[in-house]
Amino acid sequence: MRKLVALPVLSADALSSVAYGPEAMLAILVLAGTAGLAYSFPISAAIVFLILAVGVSYRQTIRAYPHGGGSYIVASDNLGPVPGLIAAAGLMTDYVLTVAVSIASGVAAVTSAIPSLAPEAVPIGVAVIVLLLAGNLRGVRQAGALFAAPTYAFIVAMFALITWGLVQSAERGFEPRPTPVITVTESAGLYLIMRAFSSGATAMTGIEAISNAVPVFRRVEWRQARTTLTWMVGLLIAMFAGIVALTHLTGVVPSSRETVLSQLAHLSFGSGWLYVFVQAATAAVLLLAANTAYNDFPRVLSLLARDDYAPRGFMRLGDRLAYSNGIILLSVAAALVYVAFDGQTAALIPLYAVGVFLAFTFSQAGMVVHWWRLRDRHWRKSLLFNALGALLSAVVFITAGISKFTSGAWVAIVAVGLFLLVTLRIHRHYTDVRARLRLRPHTMELPAPGEMGVTREAEAEVEAQAEGEAEVKGVKGVKEGESDVNGETEVNGEYEVNGEYEELPEEIHHLLIVPLATLDLAGMRALAYAASLRRPVLALHISLTDQEADRLRAYWALWGDHLPLEIVVSPYRATVAPLAHYIETLHRQHPDLTLTVILPEIITRHRRHQLLHSRTAPRLRRALRPLTKIVITTVPFHV
Amino acid sequence: MRKLVALPVLSADALSSVAYGPEAMLAILVLAGTAGLAYSFPISAAIVFLILAVGVSYRQTIRAYPHGGGSYIVASDNLGPVPGLIAAAGLMTDYVLTVAVSIASGVAAVTSAIPSLAPEAVPIGVAVIVLLLAGNLRGVRQAGALFAAPTYAFIVAMFALITWGLVQSAERGFEPRPTPVITVTESAGLYLIMRAFSSGATAMTGIEAISNAVPVFRRVEWRQARTTLTWMVGLLIAMFAGIVALTHLTGVVPSSRETVLSQLAHLSFGSGWLYVFVQAATAAVLLLAANTAYNDFPRVLSLLARDDYAPRGFMRLGDRLAYSNGIILLSVAAALVYVAFDGQTAALIPLYAVGVFLAFTFSQAGMVVHWWRLRDRHWRKSLLFNALGALLSAVVFITAGISKFTSGAWVAIVAVGLFLLVTLRIHRHYTDVRARLRLRPHTMELPAPGEMGVTREAEAEVEAQAEGEAEVKGVKGVKEGESDVNGETEVNGEYEVNGEYEELPEEIHHLLIVPLATLDLAGMRALAYAASLRRPVLALHISLTDQEADRLRAYWALWGDHLPLEIVVSPYRATVAPLAHYIETLHRQHPDLTLTVILPEIITRHRRHQLLHSRTAPRLRRALRPLTKIVITTVPFHV
Repeated sequence: MRKLVALPVLSADALSSVAYGPEAMLAILVLAGTAGLAYSFPISAAIVFLILAVGVSYRQTIRAYPHGGGSYIVASDNLGPVPGLIAAAGLMTDYVLTVAVSIASGVAAVTSAIPSLAPEAVPIGVAVIVLLLAGNLRGVRQAGALFAAPTYAFIVAMFALITWGLVQSAERGFEPRPTPVITVTESAGLYLIMRAFSSGATAMTGIEAISNAVPVFRRVEWRQARTTLTWMVGLLIAMFAGIVALTHLTGVVPSSRETVLSQLAHLSFGSGWLYVFVQAATAAVLLLAANTAYNDFPRVLSLLARDDYAPRGFMRLGDRLAYSNGIILLSVAAALVYVAFDGQTAALIPLYAVGVFLAFTFSQAGMVVHWWRLRDRHWRKSLLFNALGALLSAVVFITAGISKFTSGAWVAIVAVGLFLLVTLRIHRHYTDVRARLRLRPHTMELPAPGEMGVTREAEAEVEAQAEGEAEVKGVKGVKEGESDVNGETEVNGEYEVNGEYEELPEEIHHLLIVPLATLDLAGMRALAYAASLRRPVLALHISLTDQEADRLRAYWALWGDHLPLEIVVSPYRATVAPLAHYIETLHRQHPDLTLTVILPEIITRHRRHQLLHSRTAPRLRRALRPLTKIVITTVPFHV
Repeated sequence: MRKLVALPVLSADALSSVAYGPEAMLAILVLAGTAGLAYSFPISAAIVFLILAVGVSYRQTIRAYPHGGGSYIVASDNLGPVPGLIAAAGLMTDYVLTVAVSIASGVAAVTSAIPSLAPEAVPIGVAVIVLLLAGNLRGVRQAGALFAAPTYAFIVAMFALITWGLVQSAERGFEPRPTPVITVTESAGLYLIMRAFSSGATAMTGIEAISNAVPVFRRVEWRQARTTLTWMVGLLIAMFAGIVALTHLTGVVPSSRETVLSQLAHLSFGSGWLYVFVQAATAAVLLLAANTAYNDFPRVLSLLARDDYAPRGFMRLGDRLAYSNGIILLSVAAALVYVAFDGQTAALIPLYAVGVFLAFTFSQAGMVVHWWRLRDRHWRKSLLFNALGALLSAVVFITAGISKFTSGAWVAIVAVGLFLLVTLRIHRHYTDVRARLRLRPHTMELPAPGEMGVTREAEAEVEAQAEGEAEVKGVKGVKEGESDVNGETEVNGEYEVNGEYEELPEEIHHLLIVPLATLDLAGMRALAYAASLRRPVLALHISLTDQEADRLRAYWALWGDHLPLEIVVSPYRATVAPLAHYIETLHRQHPDLTLTVILPEIITRHRRHQLLHSRTAPRLRRALRPLTKIVITTVPFHV
């Protein structure tokens, strides 16, 4: 991707943050009235310094991780699995809140312009989440040029607004307009300043996007990525500082009815098309920012799944189902948070700050360890920058976590805790299962193929094996059969199943059971399939009455062709339960038999008609779940 | 069941109807003020006559259908399938509205006593529906004695109320108290009278319950049932007439804040425990009436399923799933109607009248045909009674349908139409499928075993066959294998599949495909199972990269024991799609092969852990749905 395309696509999230960051800071300070607002300059200066420090810090990450260094990768690589998971928990919270906050702020941009929509803000926001979900389910991805437009429009709008505002202000000799009378509800103190600082710091959310996506750049990727990051940080600082300055000069204060940006635009441009342009560009870039989470969330889920911390189904991003489940999860979580906090940007900010700066802290801390271990050229400078970034991020995280604990941050902290609990349990389950599935547990461990490309242990093992170090005894469990796949199949190979696995029986004794609901072609096909396997076959029928049983026996004499038939009379008007009971009894009586239940399955032409045919196979499978050595086979019959 | 137990259990629905029937009638008449209310006597007389006529009519049904004659059975037996379906449509509407109306009226009884609950009426009603659903899902059925109490309490309450009211009135020389001033919004005309009549007629809903349930009585069942019906009709008429008379004498008029029964009870008993008893008994009997629909609805669904008009899954009442699906359907429909009509009894009454009297009409008309065909002793008298019942029911149905079309009856009529459309389409599908599944279509038709007990054609066929009339040529498709089910299985039988079916291949050529995600014990077990069937086996692996493929090949050399292995490299990070694609290609290249896909399936100890393991089998089945000759087998591995 060219830099001029990469910049808008990757920085939509970060730049759009100036739509709510400065306002969030001012909304806290205004509680202390004019005295509070006076702190906006020093706090903004601290935030600008923070942006710079974190920006430089991410420049180091780009150099160290040219293949993309997300917080989860960096933290788990350098700090270990649990810190990695904590970073991932921060990231997941971050993505959910990116959606919720961006949409809340975007809807506020719209309702500022069209106040009559204000009472419908929450339903509108939910509708937007549903639309984003639908769009992403159908596969709308970030298509470069199309997605570049809103970001550039927003940059133009912001600079026009700031420039024009400064020009107007210059005409007045930079004399600040008087602020309106403010009801003071709090005194300006450290507590207030801390809260304002951590709220304002959300103006830099999304700054990590470029370091995640280094490989999308043209060569030399990491150099191009660094340059783009520098531009982005420059733009971010200019826009942030410009908006704070303009707010000060115009005397605008945050209001629940109209966003600060909308008030500034009204002052500069009246209500004409320029004002509409500012609001539209703001809403568009925020929508785009929300959309970036739809790409990032499933990606992190797939990394977690790769490392056994999430259901494996999420691992394969190419599987439509996995991707869909991921973004449905994201949408539901975002919608819940959005509705629970009534679609108020200000209420969501504390949660957001906690998630984002938690991920930043662990990512930067991971980089410190990285440089310490590597100690290549310039390592001292890089370590220093990263350490500063980690320290400042940690300060913001702790500030946000403590000062806003009761006003929402606790939700994010509880979410992180739950996330850790669940992921660690999932990991334990997979570890457990892998141990039970392992071939020859004492001589070697086979990694899952999905892991092969990633874990170092697996590679080491394969190498070790190639060098003949691992003592591998082949299990001669199965021998070759003739398998020319050209339809001219003949069977003359000799098979034997000898007992080198302890878990497998020495020889598999088969009994094929064909449950028949009725004598029809579907059942006959299942019977023919069973018979063709040349193993003992037993047909099974559940009759409601003795008369029905007798009648079936009469038919069987004609049609069953001497195959053994067992009829179970079950007057309880149920099929699956007596069938399962019969098979279970058979299994208990003959535990050495492998029972294969061969079920005819009617396949209809239209999917909706499938509902009209019984789903015996899944129900039987569920009923027989605890029993071993019950194989279930479905033979389709298309009508 | 003894009569004294059967009476309360079976008549809860009918008797509880007096809680809303008279009120519904008066609520219409009051629109025309005092002049309108004057019509309450002649209309009530007409309704009493209707109750008598329909009651006598059902006495005939009980004699003719000692095994239980529901409207659907009677109408389809005597009038044919479509009239039967119309009757069933009426019944289904009836059951849904029995729930909705009984709960609306029951909640009104409660809010009359505790007015502060009135604003929460709709949520309370929905909660009651949810409770009924939960109770029935857990299997609370009508347990005689326990369920008898509310009905007897209600009977006692009503007679106490009426008697006490009449005594008080007698003291005043039966001089009616003046009615309050009424705003007249309509003139008293035929249209108003029609609406009042059809509304008041809902006081007899549920009168058919005894004729459905004849077999539950002691011997001689039909005699006992008739006696019980006579008692019930007597009680119903007495209560209906008593309430109407009392309303007239006390000058009570319907109000939206308090039910008529509650007003009467307040006048007679003040607000003491007698008043509370009346209200509690009313609410209890209405709850019981709503609960009866939970027994009837799945029963009618199962009859429809038996005759191929509903998904077959509903047929077997003993299957928990079928029963559950039925009552969930009922609850959802009832809750929707209840909420859509804002929990207002008066608004629901028109829908109710349409459904109930549609079923009554077709049921009675069916009885007329029945007697005409049978012409046994007394047939003329029975036919006359049933004809009168049918005629009067039709009058009410048409009256309700026309006079209340715009005020809700259209919903019921549209529902009946949709019901007919869906059931007939389902029937067409099943007929179609049966034709395609039929063995030897030209010589005989095999009924589904589920039908054997019921359809006459099937019995006739079996008889015909026994007499050697049907030319049956046995299909020697499958021959016997050795099947001693005692674990000492040996295979030495000779099998052949010869070509007497045109749908089945002359010989089944097998290829067993074992897709392996990884080399582990679960995969090895699937391989061993496949190999033990002594048919050609092909192992299949989807690799993400060439390196992964090479690595697996190296492992395979050690572990695969010369079984052929095919590796598909699919860089798209998906498993099911490339797997399905490979199998599909194989199928197209070798259409004569029957491909059996043998999938290892990990079974976890805890069900919630199952989510962590991929559901390849169902997804593959869905992907391969359109292809014939693809058999899918799952081999369980318990961890």
